[in-house]
Amino acid sequence: MIKVAIMGCGTIGSGVYEVIEENQAILKKELGDEIRVSRILDLREFPGTPYEKLVTGDFSAIEKDPEISIVVETMGGTKPAYQFVKACLLAGKHVVTSNKALVAAHGTELLQIARDKNINFLFEAAVGGGIPVIRTLGTGYAGQEIMEITGILNGTTNYILTEMDRRGTSFGDALAEAQRLGYAERNPEADVEGFDTCRKIAILTSLVTDSEVNFEQIHTEGITKIDTTDFAYAKKLNANIKLVGSAVRENGRVAVSVCPKLIPEDNPLYGVSGVFNGILIRGNMLGVTMLYGSGAGKLPTASAVLADIIEAAKNMDRNVPFGWHEGQTVPEPMEDSLHRYLIRFKGSDSAKAKAVFADAEAVSPDGEAAGEEFALFTGVMREKDMQAAAAQFDNIIKVIRA
Amino acid sequence: MIKVAIMGCGTIGSGVYEVIEENQAILKKELGDEIRVSRILDLREFPGTPYEKLVTGDFSAIEKDPEISIVVETMGGTKPAYQFVKACLLAGKHVVTSNKALVAAHGTELLQIARDKNINFLFEAAVGGGIPVIRTLGTGYAGQEIMEITGILNGTTNYILTEMDRRGTSFGDALAEAQRLGYAERNPEADVEGFDTCRKIAILTSLVTDSEVNFEQIHTEGITKIDTTDFAYAKKLNANIKLVGSAVRENGRVAVSVCPKLIPEDNPLYGVSGVFNGILIRGNMLGVTMLYGSGAGKLPTASAVLADIIEAAKNMDRNVPFGWHEGQTVPEPMEDSLHRYLIRFKGSDSAKAKAVFADAEAVSPDGEAAGEEFALFTGVMREKDMQAAAAQFDNIIKVIRA
Repeated sequence: MIKVAIMGCGTIGSGVYEVIEENQAILKKELGDEIRVSRILDLREFPGTPYEKLVTGDFSAIEKDPEISIVVETMGGTKPAYQFVKACLLAGKHVVTSNKALVAAHGTELLQIARDKNINFLFEAAVGGGIPVIRTLGTGYAGQEIMEITGILNGTTNYILTEMDRRGTSFGDALAEAQRLGYAERNPEADVEGFDTCRKIAILTSLVTDSEVNFEQIHTEGITKIDTTDFAYAKKLNANIKLVGSAVRENGRVAVSVCPKLIPEDNPLYGVSGVFNGILIRGNMLGVTMLYGSGAGKLPTASAVLADIIEAAKNMDRNVPFGWHEGQTVPEPMEDSLHRYLIRFKGSDSAKAKAVFADAEAVSPDGEAAGEEFALFTGVMREKDMQAAAAQFDNIIKVIRA
Repeated sequence: MIKVAIMGCGTIGSGVYEVIEENQAILKKELGDEIRVSRILDLREFPGTPYEKLVTGDFSAIEKDPEISIVVETMGGTKPAYQFVKACLLAGKHVVTSNKALVAAHGTELLQIARDKNINFLFEAAVGGGIPVIRTLGTGYAGQEIMEITGILNGTTNYILTEMDRRGTSFGDALAEAQRLGYAERNPEADVEGFDTCRKIAILTSLVTDSEVNFEQIHTEGITKIDTTDFAYAKKLNANIKLVGSAVRENGRVAVSVCPKLIPEDNPLYGVSGVFNGILIRGNMLGVTMLYGSGAGKLPTASAVLADIIEAAKNMDRNVPFGWHEGQTVPEPMEDSLHRYLIRFKGSDSAKAKAVFADAEAVSPDGEAAGEEFALFTGVMREKDMQAAAAQFDNIIKVIRA
């Protein structure tokens, strides 16, 4: 029997317990061995639950139990998750985590400890919930260069943007609705300011470039300034607006950013709606593929954890080559990155704007906005060139990249 | 150095040569060893190509060369591919194939030989081209039951249906266009009659049920009878029409079919257009995910072959558990399967039809069809009940499942 401990018995942690119990027969068949949860670390008690008696508040009961060979970390945050995970790895226990903050901040070190100890540190559930993007990057696209990853990686913001698009709801109303439905937290900052997406694209980019991308170096904008007029312009351009984390490699450099972007109709991410995630991957040989699914939620995320538990269980005595190595990938400065831009201007006199952005196409506003403002959709420009040109105007309302 | 032979130097085979040459640096890094193509089996000569000198017409030059450890089969068809592949496996060589006909007809036996010989028989490229669906099924969804796979698995028919939908083209014109562009073959039967999709869904279902589904037992309909009026009705139902291969498990049985189906707007397959493929997978825990990408094409397919070559190269001395085992999965009889149905009737007198299909909703025709015909969209019914009800009418034009 393989004994597993779960650290953190919130939504995901209790979900992991459930999927392990529910799928005993399949696990037995796949592994030829039983997997059982033998300890759950949490400061709370859970009277009346089937796992009531497994709960302990004492980390050393897990760290010092030689029978526990796999530890699942679903506490979130980095304190004390980092300390506990590191201790488990040093004690020779495989660790599976769903914690993107931990992986983005300490992944490099933890991956190296796992290699040194000949065990595994796995984190499929940290990005894309039930979408097996991390495993797929490692094996499905073996042998080629990944040139681009662009992902709708946060279901909360995608739900909000979808509501704004489909129902013409304001950002505030859509956020309130998301909170009411439990899709957004009371303090929604991590989602709506793009911080969650930032950590996820940092992890994916680190995997692709094989060395750490410091998430603090990634240009990150959220969706709080997006309004319904933006969606009206997007429709005119046969596009949608999505919060995307994106990493694009070119000439040995990698441009990484998190910001709301115009996604044209012929991009497979265009149709990724509501709380779903979609991750577009472009390889130098295979062209574009996309993975789509539930990016969060108890059972999808717990399923991803379970797939990692199985991977660890199948490789108890060896470190499966995985994850990035020591070193740093420094993202290209945002000002050097290339985009198209939708630029909204106050007023109706577009002569100067059309002269400055000579190859831009005009996009006419509808409804209330007509007469009040106008917009241009530029060709591909370097960010700093756009900024320099934009500095000549004092009537720019907003710039959205494409 | 790992020596590879390629059998069949058509589009895919020559693509495999290209991706191996093009990605030498990455391969070296991933494997710590070189991969080189040392022989190509083809009856033709290829003067002026970089691989001119590797070509042989003599299979024994591959079979008997002890230095060749991995053989790629991209000949297509089962004769002589089956005989050659079997001989290579028996000679202890790993085999990677893109040949769905071979895998659907002889996969069970070839997988077993690979296990007995402690080598690998891999076929990622046989389904979904560059989409890593087979590897993902094996590892990304480990530990749970796959309840449904529904796939747009054939780019040719998807291109034709997309053209019919978007441009109102007839089937014949869309097929002719597909042939002109090289998306359809001169004899398009394998694609448009659903035979290609049938073999692919047979392979996917066999993987999921862990025993062979005989493709000849799968109810298979093509798209030759779909007309533009069908698309007009689909639009009224906020749906599209796609040729899908589908396997649904319920109560220990599996319903497998290939036919054109109404796909509603909120299904992620709805937006899969043109020559792209999309494969929806529903797990008992993770819910719905979808994989999207190029289902065919030289480089995407060759990339999938390359990923398998790497898998074999990393596991030279062991059989990685993969594929189904001996035994048969008998699909549920089509007459027992459950669907909704769009039924088109000649004439305008809908009273009897509405009485017989009491819970159906009426769908009104537009344009030319108005006055000439009417249609009903039924609730969920068992196929045999629908057939029995339909037998009461002599004015049914067509039935399309949903």
